[in-house]
Amino acid sequence: MKDFIGEDFLLSTKSAEKLYNEYVKDLPIIDYHCHINPREIAENISFKNITEAWLYGDHYKWRAVRACGFDEKYVTGGVDDYERFRAWASTMPSLIGNPLYHWTHLELKKYFGITQPLSEKSCDEIWEKCNSVITSGNFRVRDIIESSGVDTICTTDDPADDLKWHKMISEDSTFKTRVLPAFRPDKGVNIELPGFAEYLKDVLGPSAGIDIKDLDSLLTAYVQRINYFEENGFKTSDHGMGYIPYSPADSSEVDHILKKVLSGEEISTDECDKYKTYMLVFFASEFSKRNIVMQIHYGVIRNNNTRAFEKLGADTGFDTIAGYECTVNALRLLDEFDKNGILPKMVIYSLNPADNAAIDALCGCFQGNCDGIRSKIQHGAAWWFNDHLEGMREHMKTYAAESVFANFIGMLTDSRSFLSYTRHDYFRRILCDYIGGMIERGEYPNDFEAAGKIASDISYYNTKRFFGF
Amino acid sequence: MKDFIGEDFLLSTKSAEKLYNEYVKDLPIIDYHCHINPREIAENISFKNITEAWLYGDHYKWRAVRACGFDEKYVTGGVDDYERFRAWASTMPSLIGNPLYHWTHLELKKYFGITQPLSEKSCDEIWEKCNSVITSGNFRVRDIIESSGVDTICTTDDPADDLKWHKMISEDSTFKTRVLPAFRPDKGVNIELPGFAEYLKDVLGPSAGIDIKDLDSLLTAYVQRINYFEENGFKTSDHGMGYIPYSPADSSEVDHILKKVLSGEEISTDECDKYKTYMLVFFASEFSKRNIVMQIHYGVIRNNNTRAFEKLGADTGFDTIAGYECTVNALRLLDEFDKNGILPKMVIYSLNPADNAAIDALCGCFQGNCDGIRSKIQHGAAWWFNDHLEGMREHMKTYAAESVFANFIGMLTDSRSFLSYTRHDYFRRILCDYIGGMIERGEYPNDFEAAGKIASDISYYNTKRFFGF
Amino acid sequence: MKDFIGEDFLLSTKSAEKLYNEYVKDLPIIDYHCHINPREIAENISFKNITEAWLYGDHYKWRAVRACGFDEKYVTGGVDDYERFRAWASTMPSLIGNPLYHWTHLELKKYFGITQPLSEKSCDEIWEKCNSVITSGNFRVRDIIESSGVDTICTTDDPADDLKWHKMISEDSTFKTRVLPAFRPDKGVNIELPGFAEYLKDVLGPSAGIDIKDLDSLLTAYVQRINYFEENGFKTSDHGMGYIPYSPADSSEVDHILKKVLSGEEISTDECDKYKTYMLVFFASEFSKRNIVMQIHYGVIRNNNTRAFEKLGADTGFDTIAGYECTVNALRLLDEFDKNGILPKMVIYSLNPADNAAIDALCGCFQGNCDGIRSKIQHGAAWWFNDHLEGMREHMKTYAAESVFANFIGMLTDSRSFLSYTRHDYFRRILCDYIGGMIERGEYPNDFEAAGKIASDISYYNTKRFFGF
Repeated sequence: MKDFIGEDFLLSTKSAEKLYNEYVKDLPIIDYHCHINPREIAENISFKNITEAWLYGDHYKWRAVRACGFDEKYVTGGVDDYERFRAWASTMPSLIGNPLYHWTHLELKKYFGITQPLSEKSCDEIWEKCNSVITSGNFRVRDIIESSGVDTICTTDDPADDLKWHKMISEDSTFKTRVLPAFRPDKGVNIELPGFAEYLKDVLGPSAGIDIKDLDSLLTAYVQRINYFEENGFKTSDHGMGYIPYSPADSSEVDHILKKVLSGEEISTDECDKYKTYMLVFFASEFSKRNIVMQIHYGVIRNNNTRAFEKLGADTGFDTIAGYECTVNALRLLDEFDKNGILPKMVIYSLNPADNAAIDALCGCFQGNCDGIRSKIQHGAAWWFNDHLEGMREHMKTYAAESVFANFIGMLTDSRSFLSYTRHDYFRRILCDYIGGMIERGEYPNDFEAAGKIASDISYYNTKRFFGF
Repeated sequence: MKDFIGEDFLLSTKSAEKLYNEYVKDLPIIDYHCHINPREIAENISFKNITEAWLYGDHYKWRAVRACGFDEKYVTGGVDDYERFRAWASTMPSLIGNPLYHWTHLELKKYFGITQPLSEKSCDEIWEKCNSVITSGNFRVRDIIESSGVDTICTTDDPADDLKWHKMISEDSTFKTRVLPAFRPDKGVNIELPGFAEYLKDVLGPSAGIDIKDLDSLLTAYVQRINYFEENGFKTSDHGMGYIPYSPADSSEVDHILKKVLSGEEISTDECDKYKTYMLVFFASEFSKRNIVMQIHYGVIRNNNTRAFEKLGADTGFDTIAGYECTVNALRLLDEFDKNGILPKMVIYSLNPADNAAIDALCGCFQGNCDGIRSKIQHGAAWWFNDHLEGMREHMKTYAAESVFANFIGMLTDSRSFLSYTRHDYFRRILCDYIGGMIERGEYPNDFEAAGKIASDISYYNTKRFFGF
Repeated sequence: MKDFIGEDFLLSTKSAEKLYNEYVKDLPIIDYHCHINPREIAENISFKNITEAWLYGDHYKWRAVRACGFDEKYVTGGVDDYERFRAWASTMPSLIGNPLYHWTHLELKKYFGITQPLSEKSCDEIWEKCNSVITSGNFRVRDIIESSGVDTICTTDDPADDLKWHKMISEDSTFKTRVLPAFRPDKGVNIELPGFAEYLKDVLGPSAGIDIKDLDSLLTAYVQRINYFEENGFKTSDHGMGYIPYSPADSSEVDHILKKVLSGEEISTDECDKYKTYMLVFFASEFSKRNIVMQIHYGVIRNNNTRAFEKLGADTGFDTIAGYECTVNALRLLDEFDKNGILPKMVIYSLNPADNAAIDALCGCFQGNCDGIRSKIQHGAAWWFNDHLEGMREHMKTYAAESVFANFIGMLTDSRSFLSYTRHDYFRRILCDYIGGMIERGEYPNDFEAAGKIASDISYYNTKRFFGF
């Protein structure tokens, strides 16, 4: 029997251990997609206790606590921080088989030196230990980032953002980690959502110094903002959508659709898709000429619990996996990019694990390029509801079986927390176990030069090269 | 090499064996969803031979025999019972990897003390041995139920049922197992099927003493029947449907739709969905106030072979897995329940295993409640075509990865046979192997108090608490 | 640690080794579905080098080389053969976890005696070794086929084909392998594709000596061609389609639809489906009376990259997995066959692995027959993007769990290459490992007579019986 989360955690063979220990364990981390707040890095904040660090903003954890029958005040707040932590601690043992169980204990071990399992029994002791580290003065967010070996972080930013925190961080030579913005234009793309017109008029337009009143002025504003992001070193965009739209239309039609919405008229679903398709083509064009990576996340249905949404707002743990079939639209969209010579480097993620094979095969239809880019169209790492042991294993096996695994750009945290860098360690262990297992079983040669290169490329170097960090 | 179906069957580690032997093996069984006939328990019937017990009504087995090239008379009857058994025996060795192979041998071992594999060769010997047990006088259905350690059974009953067999059983103090009805109103919900109007007028109405001629009288009749079921101790309903409908409409529109059908007019698919949606909301409302668990089974396409249906009728082995995408409808329906404060405890099952992750994530959107219920919305155990070794493993892994596995309410037989209780044993072994494997690999602490509690909760206690048995 | 692709490759238990070595290793091969060119067998061609044998026509490999950033001239040609081979060799180590990795090394071992992994480093040595074998004079295609133990090959042929190469081969008594045509009428079924009318008028009609101007003459031409194929020993048809259509219509309506297309008019999607449905019913009728196996492959979206299609044409590595939901149509179509007493033996394949369970369950609705045929409706082996280690394992496990695994008709290469027969060996190893594992774990009896029969039936005998070779 192995120790709980011991040194050889998830490494079930000698080859896996060798790959992990000799090739990837100490590589730096590039976290190319996350949701941490750049202000908090700029200000180098600290936390008052483990509840603030863990439970103030993490809706993954909230869902688990809710499902254990706790009243909402223990979940999103109302009781004091100790009580919230206690609810979380007593939820913990029930989370067998859930990534939260491993993430939590990896974080306890790495950041607090705690190897004891968290439960109602150990709650008080762990509460004290964590808080004493947190309030020691050496546990500000930059301490966490640096001790985690993080080389580069991409936050997620609205195009209207002035990026002042990013500038402040980059001007501060005492902090070595690069913190770059990522361009997430969803608010100006999701034309069907409330607040779209207000966003364009009151937020995006002013940020670009442009009065947005038609398609032309919108595109001008976006180009201005993309240029501004480029000046600030961005390397990637991100697009979150329920499904991938594809409904081509010309500028004048899209201009007409946009004007309808700006003047408060309703539009049809197809008009909505036309607008979105047009905008995605526009962004692809801007990104491809700047060598920016375009990430598309789809397959989510959000805010499904009306009562909770009205009380708590978005991103509070009430989203789910959509079963929309997007293959045809994705094919047509990428072909549209490709035909026009504007296919950027892309990363595609679906929240539905049943889409894995289809995405891997789809990416394979658009890999040819004259720039020597390896796997220009990538199937992104197992995401959100798939970001767990089995989900990552399935993603890796399918990626490898359908395409060229050695080109995979690997892991991201997608997290709102500064303590999530252990997810990279979790990923690397799974990766090394996968590759090591193949070596042990005679499915890949006993050639650690080759296998170690693949493991370290996927853990770090591919990401660096692909994004151009 | 392990013995065939030995004591450590499916238990691949010491931890798995420990969990199974020390925590769950001897727990009672709650079979909260099955299709056995309460009359047969009330009358405490016996069988004349193993063919009657195994092959008279089990369409799982019929499919297998048919696929082995046997003429229909060997399947659903025509030849004598020995010949039918012989066809089944000679089919058996071909069923490698099929749950029927394990179920059959678990039943042979538990009920007849036979460890020899069934095949054409052993057919005669096993035929004799089984029949000598069956005709011994100690093998009536109550003997089987009691020797299986069954604590509670929920049958599946039409709302019009007078429940006389349930009453007779509950009044008989010599039989300790509770046999409760479950409320399955499909015949009054599936408005598109032939016989719907006749059922309302000639069966449901008379059972409630009400002349059903509109929506009001229908609902009155149902409330009367629900009250009657409540008097008889029911704890759960069951709803079988191809897909989950969601098309809201008000009472007057639904009343109009119902009247059209009662007067022999055709209705559209959307009208059909409106009626069904309305009725599901109505039932949820009635169940939530009575603390009744609402089960929804969907993703089935039934009676696909017209020739066979005309000859043999329904439930004869010609149903299959549907690929309908129901996520959005299920979300809207549950949100409708929740918004109206009538969300009952629910169990959701799809016949399509590709839906597993989506259901787990969906359930997570509706867990919050003020009653301290753990996982109020449950993803039901791997069902029918998924009720096998791999299917259960996949279901468990996904359940655990997406939500709180320790809250899972576990296994049911869904069977028409009195010999199927070994399926609970099969499930418990798989469960213990899953949990034990995590302990052995250092993925969960070596804490048998915690792990044993989870294993026994999922095997028995969660079910008891969730349904309130 | 096991040797790379050693004698016990993929055989992880003693039982697996025993099954493989004693029961299946030396069985002949029936390759009932492939895309090799019968002319090349008739002419007994040889290759000039390994690039010609491996890289001239294999779009599986092309995708991999493209994804490794090579310019198209290294993929489909432009540079010399050595350079193309070098690109392939340097792609190889990146293909960890991809079936191409195993296929390549199995082929190197079997046909060239090379056990060294292919990479940029070993490229020159392997290039020399392979070419010296290839140009030795003992490496013509018939040498390869005979040394691979191939008993029967079915090519894929247009109904208009004169089958002269098949005749020439069958008349040559020095070559023992049967090379039979398979009937693939897609060009006369895919009414929506460009060239359909021309094909009927200029190719199919003339081949039958019939002027195709309406449905009647079309059917007469097809019957003539089916008879001709029958004279030439065909045992199977193949139908490739994006999705399975089902839209019934009578002859006069279909005649009208056909005439519209013949006269250059456009038709609707539903008209297209009506024509296809009608034709599939017609073919089923012709095949069932001749005892011909009807194969349907669906779930593909082809030629997704417009730029590449315009430059390179079809079948060049730009196809992908479709997510079309075809269950209802497939059910209705098979029921239509069955109701009319014309259900032929069938093999159904979807390119979407998420369809596996649904297809297995669907097949189970149509197994009953009076002819003693075991699993008359088969779920075909893991196909194309699923034809890999995990894909085959998943296919086997699902097939076994849902139906009768011992009846499975097993493997085909689906290949354009004469070196792909090692894929049968790959399959047999996975098969024996699957069965052997069940024996070792006590999930199937330690009865090698039974288990060995299953392994050899699936490897060879079932195929022979099912097709009637």
